[in-house]
Amino acid sequence: MSDDVAPVGAFAPPSPYELVDWRRGFGRQIGPLYRAVGPDGVRMAFRVEEHHTNGMSNAHGGMLMTFADMAWGHVISVETSSFWVTVRLTCDFLSGAHLGDWVEGGAEILSVEDGLYTMRGRIWCGERVLMTGSGVFKALSRRPPRPGEKAFAPAT
Amino acid sequence: MSDDVAPVGAFAPPSPYELVDWRRGFGRQIGPLYRAVGPDGVRMAFRVEEHHTNGMSNAHGGMLMTFADMAWGHVISVETSSFWVTVRLTCDFLSGAHLGDWVEGGAEILSVEDGLYTMRGRIWCGERVLMTGSGVFKALSRRPPRPGEKAFAPAT
Repeated sequence: MSDDVAPVGAFAPPSPYELVDWRRGFGRQIGPLYRAVGPDGVRMAFRVEEHHTNGMSNAHGGMLMTFADMAWGHVISVETSSFWVTVRLTCDFLSGAHLGDWVEGGAEILSVEDGLYTMRGRIWCGERVLMTGSGVFKALSRRPPRPGEKAFAPAT
Repeated sequence: MSDDVAPVGAFAPPSPYELVDWRRGFGRQIGPLYRAVGPDGVRMAFRVEEHHTNGMSNAHGGMLMTFADMAWGHVISVETSSFWVTVRLTCDFLSGAHLGDWVEGGAEILSVEDGLYTMRGRIWCGERVLMTGSGVFKALSRRPPRPGEKAFAPAT
């Protein structure tokens, strides 16, 4: 809908985050998003830009939920190298993120049952927690691992 | 992030839907959205465009949740002419929407308590239900009614 955002290259994310190179569809539309794989697992992040905001210049609730869906479900991508869909997502909004804030998110797997992953997730900005929630995601067909991902291992 | 979508004016929504004229922020970024006020209350809608899709050319889960947040919470705007924020949203994904599909959504108010509105919502495409869920929204300050909205009446 718009091209009024800063060019992606104009912002250097804090290390070890790297740009997620989504070139089409909704991922591109609501980007740029960043990701990092560290000792605590995979994390995603974004900086709140003008095109992420609501009328109060905070990150729009829809953007935070979209980010939660992507950041929490992305753990399945990294753990299993498989495509997945969202079955249920519950989001509790605790605090807002402002224009320019650096927002991070991640999740842990609580259970795996018949290809259904139940996750507990969190989104935060520095020390401030913005959202907690849970997600149920269904793993679909496997695919070749991408850089930084583990090889597929069927749930046991 | 992109300007590769059809100009808004190129698509005429089915009557009585009219374009929601969001000119900035996330509402503009993920638009165009449409709304209609009829005997069953307010409804919102969008046509699935390329910039709403995931890798399977279906509406991205994040877009459906964003739409749920807007369509369900919008009932509060119309009923009370007040600003609001989302407190909790739970979304159950039942079916997908494809590129070009006309997606509609609406909600009913289950309870009002201390400015907290609990809603039961639904998103559909023709006869097919795409999502059901519930939302808790908090009404903030009132504002002058917009066309088609009721005057503010404090919850009793």
